[in-house]
Amino acid sequence: MTPFETCVERLTRGERHRVWSLIVTVFGDLAQGTDDQISMQAMTRITDPIGVKPEALRVALHRLRKDGWIDSRRHGRSSLFHLTDFGREQSVAAASRIYRAGPPTGSEWSLVMATPSSASSQRELEDIAMTRESVALSANSILAEGGSTNNGGHLFWSRPDWPSVPDWVKAATIGADIIKQYAALLATFREISGALPAGLDPFETATLRTLIVHSWRRILLRHPDVPDTLLPHDCKLPDCRSQFSDLLDRIPREHTEKIKAA
Amino acid sequence: MTPFETCVERLTRGERHRVWSLIVTVFGDLAQGTDDQISMQAMTRITDPIGVKPEALRVALHRLRKDGWIDSRRHGRSSLFHLTDFGREQSVAAASRIYRAGPPTGSEWSLVMATPSSASSQRELEDIAMTRESVALSANSILAEGGSTNNGGHLFWSRPDWPSVPDWVKAATIGADIIKQYAALLATFREISGALPAGLDPFETATLRTLIVHSWRRILLRHPDVPDTLLPHDCKLPDCRSQFSDLLDRIPREHTEKIKAA
Repeated sequence: MTPFETCVERLTRGERHRVWSLIVTVFGDLAQGTDDQISMQAMTRITDPIGVKPEALRVALHRLRKDGWIDSRRHGRSSLFHLTDFGREQSVAAASRIYRAGPPTGSEWSLVMATPSSASSQRELEDIAMTRESVALSANSILAEGGSTNNGGHLFWSRPDWPSVPDWVKAATIGADIIKQYAALLATFREISGALPAGLDPFETATLRTLIVHSWRRILLRHPDVPDTLLPHDCKLPDCRSQFSDLLDRIPREHTEKIKAA
Repeated sequence: MTPFETCVERLTRGERHRVWSLIVTVFGDLAQGTDDQISMQAMTRITDPIGVKPEALRVALHRLRKDGWIDSRRHGRSSLFHLTDFGREQSVAAASRIYRAGPPTGSEWSLVMATPSSASSQRELEDIAMTRESVALSANSILAEGGSTNNGGHLFWSRPDWPSVPDWVKAATIGADIIKQYAALLATFREISGALPAGLDPFETATLRTLIVHSWRRILLRHPDVPDTLLPHDCKLPDCRSQFSDLLDRIPREHTEKIKAA
Protein backbone atom coordinates (compact mmCIF):
# COMPACT_ATOMS: atom_id res chain seq x y z
CA MET A 1 0.00 0.00 0.00
CA THR A 2 1.43 3.40 -0.98
CA PRO A 3 1.31 6.23 1.58
CA PHE A 4 -1.42 7.83 -0.55
CA GLU A 5 -3.47 4.62 -0.43
CA THR A 6 -2.90 4.40 3.32
CA CYS A 7 -4.33 7.92 3.75
CA VAL A 8 -7.35 7.13 1.54
CA GLU A 9 -7.94 3.87 3.40
CA ARG A 10 -7.74 5.60 6.78
CA LEU A 11 -10.16 8.36 5.69
CA THR A 12 -12.75 5.96 4.29
CA ARG A 13 -12.45 3.13 6.83
CA GLY A 14 -15.83 2.32 8.32
CA GLU A 15 -17.52 5.20 6.46
CA ARG A 16 -20.12 5.06 3.72
CA HIS A 17 -19.70 8.37 1.93
CA ARG A 18 -22.65 9.11 -0.31
CA VAL A 19 -21.44 9.86 -3.82
CA TRP A 20 -23.56 12.96 -4.47
CA SER A 21 -22.33 14.39 -1.17
CA LEU A 22 -18.68 13.72 -2.15
CA ILE A 23 -19.28 15.56 -5.43
CA VAL A 24 -20.67 18.53 -3.53
CA THR A 25 -17.44 18.54 -1.54
CA VAL A 26 -15.30 18.36 -4.70
CA PHE A 27 -17.04 21.39 -6.19
CA GLY A 28 -17.06 23.27 -2.90
CA ASP A 29 -13.34 22.71 -2.36
CA LEU A 30 -11.92 22.89 -5.88
CA ALA A 31 -14.35 24.54 -8.28
CA GLN A 32 -16.36 27.18 -6.46
CA GLY A 33 -15.39 29.99 -8.89
CA THR A 34 -17.90 31.22 -11.47
CA ASP A 35 -15.71 29.99 -14.36
CA ASP A 36 -14.62 26.72 -12.78
CA GLN A 37 -15.52 23.52 -14.64
CA ILE A 38 -14.64 19.89 -13.98
CA SER A 39 -14.72 17.26 -16.72
CA MET A 40 -16.24 13.82 -16.37
CA GLN A 41 -12.78 12.32 -16.70
CA ALA A 42 -11.31 14.47 -13.91
CA MET A 43 -14.22 13.70 -11.61
CA THR A 44 -13.67 10.00 -12.30
CA ARG A 45 -9.97 10.20 -11.49
CA ILE A 46 -10.65 12.04 -8.23
CA THR A 47 -13.34 9.66 -6.98
CA ASP A 48 -12.01 6.35 -8.32
CA PRO A 49 -9.47 5.85 -5.47
CA ILE A 50 -12.35 6.29 -3.01
CA GLY A 51 -14.04 3.31 -4.65
CA VAL A 52 -16.74 5.25 -6.51
CA LYS A 53 -17.97 3.18 -9.53
CA PRO A 54 -18.47 5.08 -12.87
CA GLU A 55 -22.16 4.17 -12.89
CA ALA A 56 -22.66 5.53 -9.33
CA LEU A 57 -20.82 8.71 -10.34
CA ARG A 58 -23.13 9.21 -13.37
CA VAL A 59 -26.25 8.68 -11.26
CA ALA A 60 -25.06 11.14 -8.60
CA LEU A 61 -24.15 13.80 -11.16
CA HIS A 62 -27.56 13.36 -12.77
CA ARG A 63 -29.28 13.80 -9.41
CA LEU A 64 -27.33 16.96 -8.56
CA ARG A 65 -28.22 18.39 -11.97
CA LYS A 66 -31.90 17.62 -11.39
CA ASP A 67 -31.69 19.33 -7.99
CA GLY A 68 -30.32 22.47 -9.63
CA TRP A 69 -27.01 22.24 -7.77
CA ILE A 70 -24.79 21.73 -10.85
CA ASP A 71 -25.15 22.01 -14.60
CA SER A 72 -23.18 20.59 -17.51
CA ARG A 73 -22.34 21.26 -21.11
CA ARG A 74 -21.01 19.00 -23.86
CA HIS A 75 -17.36 19.38 -24.75
CA GLY A 76 -16.34 17.11 -27.62
CA ARG A 77 -17.18 13.59 -26.53
CA SER A 78 -17.12 14.51 -22.84
CA SER A 79 -19.15 16.64 -20.42
CA LEU A 80 -17.99 19.62 -18.34
CA PHE A 81 -19.73 20.25 -15.00
CA HIS A 82 -20.02 23.49 -13.06
CA LEU A 83 -21.95 24.82 -10.06
CA THR A 84 -25.22 26.66 -10.72
CA ASP A 85 -25.73 30.03 -9.04
CA PHE A 86 -27.85 28.21 -6.46
CA GLY A 87 -25.19 25.54 -5.85
CA ARG A 88 -22.49 28.19 -5.57
CA GLU A 89 -24.51 30.18 -3.05
CA GLN A 90 -24.90 27.11 -0.84
CA SER A 91 -21.23 26.22 -1.21
CA VAL A 92 -20.07 29.71 -0.32
CA ALA A 93 -22.30 29.79 2.76
CA ALA A 94 -20.98 26.47 4.04
CA ALA A 95 -17.36 27.30 3.12
CA SER A 96 -17.25 30.28 5.46
CA ARG A 97 -17.81 27.88 8.35
CA ILE A 98 -15.85 24.89 7.03
CA TYR A 99 -12.62 26.74 6.30
CA ARG A 100 -12.79 29.30 9.11
CA ALA A 101 -9.62 29.11 11.21
CA GLY A 102 -11.39 29.58 14.56
CA PRO A 103 -14.71 29.68 16.38
CA PRO A 104 -17.43 32.10 15.24
CA THR A 105 -16.45 35.67 15.99
CA GLY A 106 -18.46 38.81 16.56
CA SER A 107 -21.56 36.81 17.36
CA GLU A 108 -22.72 37.15 20.93
CA TRP A 109 -25.17 34.49 21.95
CA SER A 110 -28.31 35.08 23.97
CA LEU A 111 -30.49 33.02 26.25
CA VAL A 112 -34.05 33.47 24.98
CA MET A 113 -37.08 32.45 27.05
CA ALA A 114 -40.75 32.20 26.16
CA THR A 115 -43.59 31.73 28.61
CA PRO A 116 -45.78 28.63 28.23
CA SER A 117 -48.80 30.77 29.04
CA SER A 118 -48.52 32.78 25.80
CA ALA A 119 -48.89 31.13 22.41
CA SER A 120 -47.46 34.18 20.63
CA SER A 121 -44.43 34.01 22.87
CA GLN A 122 -43.90 30.36 21.88
CA ARG A 123 -44.31 31.25 18.21
CA GLU A 124 -41.72 34.02 18.47
CA LEU A 125 -39.30 31.55 20.07
CA GLU A 126 -39.78 29.10 17.21
CA ASP A 127 -39.11 31.90 14.71
CA ILE A 128 -35.79 32.70 16.37
CA ALA A 129 -34.85 29.02 16.51
CA MET A 130 -35.60 28.64 12.78
CA THR A 131 -33.77 31.73 11.57
CA ARG A 132 -30.64 31.77 13.71
CA GLU A 133 -27.97 29.39 14.92
CA SER A 134 -29.56 28.04 18.08
CA VAL A 135 -29.65 25.30 20.71
CA ALA A 136 -32.76 24.11 22.56
CA LEU A 137 -32.31 24.21 26.35
CA SER A 138 -35.85 23.41 27.49
CA ALA A 139 -39.38 23.53 26.15
CA ASN A 140 -39.41 27.33 26.64
CA SER A 141 -35.81 28.39 26.25
CA ILE A 142 -33.08 28.36 23.65
CA LEU A 143 -29.60 29.68 23.19
CA ALA A 144 -29.49 31.73 19.99
CA GLU A 145 -26.88 33.67 18.08
CA GLY A 146 -27.11 37.44 18.37
CA GLY A 147 -29.07 39.79 20.57
CA SER A 148 -32.61 41.00 20.99
CA THR A 149 -34.22 42.56 17.97
CA ASN A 150 -37.82 42.43 19.08
CA ASN A 151 -38.37 45.09 21.71
CA GLY A 152 -42.01 45.00 22.55
CA GLY A 153 -42.17 41.28 21.77
CA HIS A 154 -42.94 38.46 24.17
CA LEU A 155 -39.48 36.95 24.57
CA PHE A 156 -37.13 37.38 27.51
CA TRP A 157 -33.56 37.96 26.30
CA SER A 158 -30.43 37.71 28.38
CA ARG A 159 -26.67 37.39 27.97
CA PRO A 160 -25.00 34.29 29.37
CA ASP A 161 -22.32 34.75 32.01
CA TRP A 162 -19.72 32.87 29.96
CA PRO A 163 -17.15 31.96 32.61
CA SER A 164 -19.77 30.09 34.66
CA VAL A 165 -21.71 28.21 31.95
CA PRO A 166 -22.45 24.81 33.55
CA ASP A 167 -21.89 21.42 31.92
CA TRP A 168 -25.57 20.65 31.33
CA VAL A 169 -25.88 23.70 29.07
CA LYS A 170 -22.79 22.67 27.09
CA ALA A 171 -24.14 19.12 26.83
CA ALA A 172 -27.26 20.54 25.16
CA THR A 173 -25.21 22.19 22.40
CA ILE A 174 -23.35 19.10 21.14
CA GLY A 175 -24.62 15.58 21.74
CA ALA A 176 -22.60 12.58 22.94
CA ASP A 177 -22.64 10.98 19.47
CA ILE A 178 -21.04 14.03 17.87
CA ILE A 179 -18.44 14.26 20.64
CA LYS A 180 -17.52 10.64 19.86
CA GLN A 181 -17.27 11.40 16.15
CA TYR A 182 -14.93 14.34 16.77
CA ALA A 183 -12.72 12.11 18.94
CA ALA A 184 -12.54 9.53 16.14
CA LEU A 185 -11.89 12.23 13.52
CA LEU A 186 -9.05 13.66 15.60
CA ALA A 187 -7.41 10.21 15.74
CA THR A 188 -7.80 9.87 11.97
CA PHE A 189 -6.41 13.35 11.28
CA ARG A 190 -3.39 12.58 13.48
CA GLU A 191 -2.72 9.33 11.63
CA ILE A 192 -3.03 11.10 8.27
CA SER A 193 -0.74 13.83 9.48
CA GLY A 194 1.99 11.26 10.13
CA ALA A 195 1.41 9.39 6.86
CA LEU A 196 0.83 12.26 4.41
CA PRO A 197 3.36 11.83 1.56
CA ALA A 198 5.19 14.58 -0.31
CA GLY A 199 4.99 14.89 -4.10
CA LEU A 200 1.33 13.98 -4.62
CA ASP A 201 0.02 14.58 -8.14
CA PRO A 202 -2.91 17.03 -8.67
CA PHE A 203 -5.53 14.27 -8.70
CA GLU A 204 -4.19 12.56 -5.59
CA THR A 205 -4.14 15.96 -3.91
CA ALA A 206 -7.76 16.52 -4.97
CA THR A 207 -8.80 13.08 -3.70
CA LEU A 208 -7.21 13.57 -0.29
CA ARG A 209 -8.48 17.13 0.08
CA THR A 210 -11.98 15.93 -0.80
CA LEU A 211 -11.86 13.18 1.83
CA ILE A 212 -10.40 15.46 4.52
CA VAL A 213 -12.94 18.25 3.88
CA HIS A 214 -15.75 15.72 3.65
CA SER A 215 -14.91 13.98 6.95
CA TRP A 216 -14.76 17.35 8.67
CA ARG A 217 -17.84 19.01 7.23
CA ARG A 218 -20.17 16.03 7.70
CA ILE A 219 -19.68 16.35 11.48
CA LEU A 220 -19.30 20.14 11.64
CA LEU A 221 -22.51 20.92 9.75
CA ARG A 222 -24.58 18.58 11.92
CA HIS A 223 -24.56 20.90 14.94
CA PRO A 224 -25.09 24.62 15.51
CA ASP A 225 -22.14 26.96 15.04
CA VAL A 226 -21.59 27.68 18.73
CA PRO A 227 -18.71 29.62 20.27
CA ASP A 228 -16.02 27.43 21.89
CA THR A 229 -17.20 28.58 25.34
CA LEU A 230 -20.38 26.58 24.72
CA LEU A 231 -18.60 23.35 23.77
CA PRO A 232 -18.55 20.42 26.21
CA HIS A 233 -15.07 20.17 27.74
CA ASP A 234 -14.41 16.77 26.13
CA CYS A 235 -15.42 17.93 22.65
CA LYS A 236 -12.42 17.76 20.32
CA LEU A 237 -13.82 20.22 17.78
CA PRO A 238 -11.10 22.86 18.36
CA ASP A 239 -8.30 20.25 18.01
CA CYS A 240 -9.93 18.83 14.88
CA ARG A 241 -10.21 22.34 13.45
CA SER A 242 -6.51 23.05 13.88
CA GLN A 243 -5.50 19.61 12.50
CA PHE A 244 -7.83 20.24 9.56
CA SER A 245 -6.14 23.55 8.75
CA ASP A 246 -2.67 22.03 9.07
CA LEU A 247 -3.49 19.13 6.76
CA LEU A 248 -4.99 21.33 4.05
CA ASP A 249 -2.02 23.69 4.24
CA ARG A 250 0.26 20.75 3.43
CA ILE A 251 -1.71 19.75 0.30
CA PRO A 252 -2.80 23.18 -0.94
CA ARG A 253 -5.58 23.85 -3.38
CA GLU A 254 -3.13 25.45 -5.86
CA HIS A 255 -1.70 21.97 -6.59
CA THR A 256 -5.05 20.98 -8.05
CA GLU A 257 -5.38 23.93 -10.44
CA LYS A 258 -4.61 21.93 -13.61
CA ILE A 259 -7.42 19.42 -13.09
CA LYS A 260 -10.00 22.06 -13.91
CA ALA A 261 -11.17 22.23 -17.53
CA ALA A 262 -10.08 25.31 -19.48
CA MET B 1 -63.55 66.63 61.70
CA THR B 2 -60.19 68.44 61.95
CA PRO B 3 -57.72 68.18 59.05
CA PHE B 4 -55.62 65.90 61.30
CA GLU B 5 -58.63 63.63 61.88
CA THR B 6 -59.39 63.60 58.17
CA CYS B 7 -55.86 62.42 57.44
CA VAL B 8 -56.07 59.69 60.11
CA GLU B 9 -59.45 58.60 58.83
CA ARG B 10 -58.21 58.41 55.25
CA LEU B 11 -55.12 56.39 56.23
CA THR B 12 -57.09 53.87 58.29
CA ARG B 13 -60.23 53.58 56.17
CA GLY B 14 -60.89 49.97 55.26
CA GLU B 15 -57.68 48.78 56.91
CA ARG B 16 -57.22 46.61 59.96
CA HIS B 17 -53.76 47.53 61.20
CA ARG B 18 -52.46 45.00 63.66
CA VAL B 19 -51.36 46.75 66.84
CA TRP B 20 -48.01 44.98 67.31
CA SER B 21 -47.17 45.83 63.73
CA LEU B 22 -48.03 49.51 64.28
CA ILE B 23 -45.73 49.54 67.32
CA VAL B 24 -42.91 48.10 65.21
CA THR B 25 -43.48 51.01 62.83
CA VAL B 26 -43.41 53.56 65.67
CA PHE B 27 -40.07 52.30 66.95
CA GLY B 28 -38.65 51.94 63.45
CA ASP B 29 -39.63 55.48 62.50
CA LEU B 30 -39.10 57.41 65.74
CA ALA B 31 -36.92 55.47 68.17
CA GLN B 32 -34.37 53.40 66.29
CA GLY B 33 -31.35 54.91 68.13
CA THR B 34 -29.59 52.92 70.84
CA ASP B 35 -30.61 55.40 73.55
CA ASP B 36 -34.15 56.00 72.32
CA GLN B 37 -36.98 55.15 74.72
CA ILE B 38 -40.73 55.66 74.48
CA SER B 39 -42.95 55.78 77.54
CA MET B 40 -46.25 53.96 77.88
CA GLN B 41 -48.01 57.34 77.99
CA ALA B 42 -46.39 58.54 74.75
CA MET B 43 -47.19 55.28 72.98
CA THR B 44 -50.79 55.64 74.11
CA ARG B 45 -51.05 59.22 72.79
CA ILE B 46 -49.60 58.20 69.42
CA THR B 47 -51.87 55.20 68.91
CA ASP B 48 -55.09 56.45 70.49
CA PRO B 49 -56.19 58.52 67.44
CA ILE B 50 -55.82 55.35 65.37
CA GLY B 51 -58.38 53.67 67.62
CA VAL B 52 -55.98 51.43 69.54
CA LYS B 53 -57.46 50.50 72.95
CA PRO B 54 -55.12 50.63 76.03
CA GLU B 55 -55.68 46.93 76.66
CA ALA B 56 -54.77 46.01 73.04
CA LEU B 57 -51.68 48.19 73.34
CA ARG B 58 -50.55 46.40 76.52
CA VAL B 59 -51.09 42.96 74.93
CA ALA B 60 -49.12 43.95 71.84
CA LEU B 61 -46.24 45.41 73.83
CA HIS B 62 -46.15 42.24 75.91
CA ARG B 63 -45.99 40.10 72.80
CA LEU B 64 -43.17 42.13 71.25
CA ARG B 65 -41.22 41.85 74.50
CA LYS B 66 -41.72 38.07 74.51
CA ASP B 67 -40.51 37.91 70.91
CA GLY B 68 -37.33 39.75 71.88
CA TRP B 69 -38.10 42.74 69.68
CA ILE B 70 -38.40 45.32 72.46
CA ASP B 71 -37.60 45.51 76.16
CA SER B 72 -38.80 47.78 78.96
CA ARG B 73 -37.72 49.18 82.28
CA ARG B 74 -39.68 50.70 85.13
CA HIS B 75 -39.54 54.47 85.48
CA GLY B 76 -41.47 55.70 88.51
CA ARG B 77 -45.03 54.47 88.09
CA SER B 78 -44.62 54.09 84.28
CA SER B 79 -42.65 51.89 81.86
CA LEU B 80 -40.11 52.95 79.24
CA PHE B 81 -39.79 50.82 76.09
CA HIS B 82 -36.81 50.47 73.74
CA LEU B 83 -35.72 48.24 70.87
CA THR B 84 -33.51 45.26 71.71
CA ASP B 85 -30.35 44.74 69.62
CA PHE B 86 -32.31 42.16 67.65
CA GLY B 87 -35.26 44.50 67.06
CA ARG B 88 -32.92 47.33 66.08
CA GLU B 89 -31.11 45.10 63.58
CA GLN B 90 -34.40 44.18 61.90
CA SER B 91 -35.58 47.79 61.91
CA VAL B 92 -32.35 49.09 60.39
CA ALA B 93 -32.45 46.42 57.65
CA ALA B 94 -36.04 47.30 56.71
CA ALA B 95 -35.43 51.06 57.00
CA SER B 96 -32.82 51.05 54.26
CA ARG B 97 -35.50 49.88 51.87
CA ILE B 98 -38.48 51.80 53.32
CA TYR B 99 -36.84 55.24 53.34
CA ARG B 100 -34.67 54.84 50.25
CA ALA B 101 -35.43 57.65 47.80
CA GLY B 102 -35.25 55.46 44.67
CA PRO B 103 -35.06 51.93 43.32
CA PRO B 104 -32.26 49.59 44.45
CA THR B 105 -28.92 50.72 43.05
CA GLY B 106 -25.71 48.89 42.34
CA SER B 107 -27.50 45.57 42.28
CA GLU B 108 -27.53 43.96 38.88
CA TRP B 109 -30.05 41.17 38.58
CA SER B 110 -29.44 37.84 36.92
CA LEU B 111 -31.56 35.20 35.27
CA VAL B 112 -30.61 31.91 36.92
CA MET B 113 -31.60 28.54 35.42
CA ALA B 114 -31.35 25.03 36.81
CA THR B 115 -31.88 21.84 34.86
CA PRO B 116 -34.68 19.50 35.96
CA SER B 117 -32.37 16.55 35.26
CA SER B 118 -30.01 17.44 38.12
CA ALA B 119 -31.15 17.46 41.74
CA SER B 120 -28.05 19.36 42.86
CA SER B 121 -28.79 22.02 40.27
CA GLN B 122 -32.32 22.38 41.69
CA ARG B 123 -30.92 22.60 45.23
CA GLU B 124 -28.48 25.31 44.24
CA LEU B 125 -31.36 27.28 42.70
CA GLU B 126 -33.35 27.03 45.93
CA ASP B 127 -30.34 28.27 47.90
CA ILE B 128 -30.07 31.36 45.71
CA ALA B 129 -33.83 31.99 45.97
CA MET B 130 -33.64 31.76 49.79
CA THR B 131 -30.62 33.99 50.30
CA ARG B 132 -31.16 36.78 47.77
CA GLU B 133 -33.91 39.06 46.56
CA SER B 134 -35.49 36.90 43.87
CA VAL B 135 -38.53 36.24 41.70
CA ALA B 136 -39.65 32.80 40.46
CA LEU B 137 -40.10 32.71 36.67
CA SER B 138 -40.70 29.00 36.12
CA ALA B 139 -40.05 25.70 37.89
CA ASN B 140 -36.38 25.91 36.88
CA SER B 141 -35.62 29.58 36.63
CA ILE B 142 -35.57 32.65 38.83
CA LEU B 143 -34.53 36.26 38.63
CA ALA B 144 -32.11 37.00 41.46
CA GLU B 145 -30.18 39.99 42.72
CA GLY B 146 -26.47 40.02 41.91
CA GLY B 147 -24.26 37.93 39.68
CA SER B 148 -22.79 34.47 39.56
CA THR B 149 -20.71 33.43 42.54
CA ASN B 150 -20.63 29.70 41.95
CA ASN B 151 -18.29 29.00 39.07
CA GLY B 152 -18.14 25.25 38.72
CA GLY B 153 -21.71 24.95 40.01
CA HIS B 154 -24.72 23.64 38.15
CA LEU B 155 -26.60 26.88 37.53
CA PHE B 156 -26.79 28.82 34.28
CA TRP B 157 -26.41 32.56 34.93
CA SER B 158 -27.21 35.32 32.50
CA ARG B 159 -27.85 39.07 32.46
CA PRO B 160 -31.26 40.28 31.30
CA ASP B 161 -31.40 42.58 28.31
CA TRP B 162 -33.24 45.28 30.25
CA PRO B 163 -34.74 47.37 27.43
CA SER B 164 -36.59 44.35 26.04
CA VAL B 165 -37.90 42.68 29.22
CA PRO B 166 -41.39 41.45 28.24
CA ASP B 167 -44.57 41.97 30.23
CA TRP B 168 -44.92 38.37 31.40
CA VAL B 169 -41.58 38.63 33.23
CA LYS B 170 -42.64 41.88 34.92
CA ALA B 171 -45.96 40.31 35.85
CA ALA B 172 -44.04 37.59 37.70
CA THR B 173 -42.26 40.14 39.90
CA ILE B 174 -45.32 41.91 41.33
CA GLY B 175 -48.75 40.30 41.42
CA ALA B 176 -52.05 41.89 40.40
CA ASP B 177 -53.19 42.26 44.04
CA ILE B 178 -50.13 44.31 44.96
CA ILE B 179 -50.49 46.47 41.86
CA LYS B 180 -54.05 47.21 43.02
CA GLN B 181 -52.85 48.08 46.50
CA TYR B 182 -50.24 50.50 45.16
CA ALA B 183 -52.93 52.20 43.06
CA ALA B 184 -55.13 52.60 46.16
CA LEU B 185 -52.19 53.84 48.25
CA LEU B 186 -51.33 56.43 45.62
CA ALA B 187 -54.90 57.76 45.77
CA THR B 188 -54.69 57.91 49.56
CA PHE B 189 -51.31 59.64 49.57
CA ARG B 190 -52.62 62.24 47.10
CA GLU B 191 -55.65 62.94 49.30
CA ILE B 192 -53.44 63.26 52.38
CA SER B 193 -51.11 65.54 50.51
CA GLY B 194 -53.99 67.95 49.89
CA ALA B 195 -55.33 67.72 53.44
CA LEU B 196 -52.14 67.71 55.50
CA PRO B 197 -52.42 70.61 58.00
CA ALA B 198 -49.63 72.87 59.20
CA GLY B 199 -48.79 73.25 62.89
CA LEU B 200 -49.29 69.65 64.04
CA ASP B 201 -48.11 68.91 67.57
CA PRO B 202 -45.35 66.28 68.09
CA PHE B 203 -47.83 63.50 68.90
CA GLU B 204 -50.05 64.24 65.92
CA THR B 205 -46.92 64.28 63.76
CA ALA B 206 -45.89 60.91 65.18
CA THR B 207 -49.35 59.45 64.58
CA LEU B 208 -49.47 60.55 60.97
CA ARG B 209 -45.87 59.50 60.26
CA THR B 210 -46.64 56.10 61.75
CA LEU B 211 -49.71 55.63 59.56
CA ILE B 212 -47.94 56.84 56.42
CA VAL B 213 -44.88 54.62 56.97
CA HIS B 214 -47.10 51.73 57.94
CA SER B 215 -49.32 51.94 54.84
CA TRP B 216 -46.23 52.07 52.66
CA ARG B 217 -44.10 49.37 54.24
CA ARG B 218 -46.88 46.77 54.51
CA ILE B 219 -47.11 46.72 50.69
CA LEU B 220 -43.45 47.37 49.95
CA LEU B 221 -42.11 44.54 52.10
CA ARG B 222 -44.50 42.00 50.59
CA HIS B 223 -42.63 41.75 47.31
CA PRO B 224 -38.97 41.43 46.27
CA ASP B 225 -36.88 44.58 46.03
CA VAL B 226 -36.70 44.64 42.23
CA PRO B 227 -35.27 47.43 40.06
CA ASP B 228 -37.89 49.68 38.43
CA THR B 229 -37.09 48.08 35.03
CA LEU B 230 -38.69 44.88 36.36
CA LEU B 231 -41.93 46.55 37.50
CA PRO B 232 -45.15 46.02 35.52
CA HIS B 233 -45.92 49.21 33.58
CA ASP B 234 -49.13 49.82 35.57
CA CYS B 235 -47.44 49.43 38.96
CA LYS B 236 -47.57 52.72 40.86
CA LEU B 237 -44.68 51.90 43.20
CA PRO B 238 -42.42 54.70 41.88
CA ASP B 239 -45.21 57.31 42.21
CA CYS B 240 -46.05 56.07 45.71
CA ARG B 241 -42.37 56.25 46.64
CA SER B 242 -42.07 59.88 45.63
CA GLN B 243 -45.38 60.82 47.33
CA PHE B 244 -44.16 59.01 50.45
CA SER B 245 -40.92 61.04 50.54
CA ASP B 246 -42.80 64.31 49.97
CA LEU B 247 -45.29 63.61 52.77
CA LEU B 248 -42.62 62.69 55.32
CA ASP B 249 -40.58 65.77 54.39
CA ARG B 250 -43.59 67.91 55.30
CA ILE B 251 -43.97 66.34 58.78
CA PRO B 252 -40.32 65.72 59.63
CA ARG B 253 -39.07 63.37 62.31
CA GLU B 254 -37.39 66.28 64.18
CA HIS B 255 -40.86 67.54 65.20
CA THR B 256 -41.35 64.37 67.20
CA GLU B 257 -38.08 64.59 69.19
CA LYS B 258 -39.70 65.66 72.46
CA ILE B 259 -42.00 62.64 72.69
CA LYS B 260 -39.03 60.39 73.46
CA ALA B 261 -38.27 59.78 77.13
CA ALA B 262 -35.07 61.29 78.47
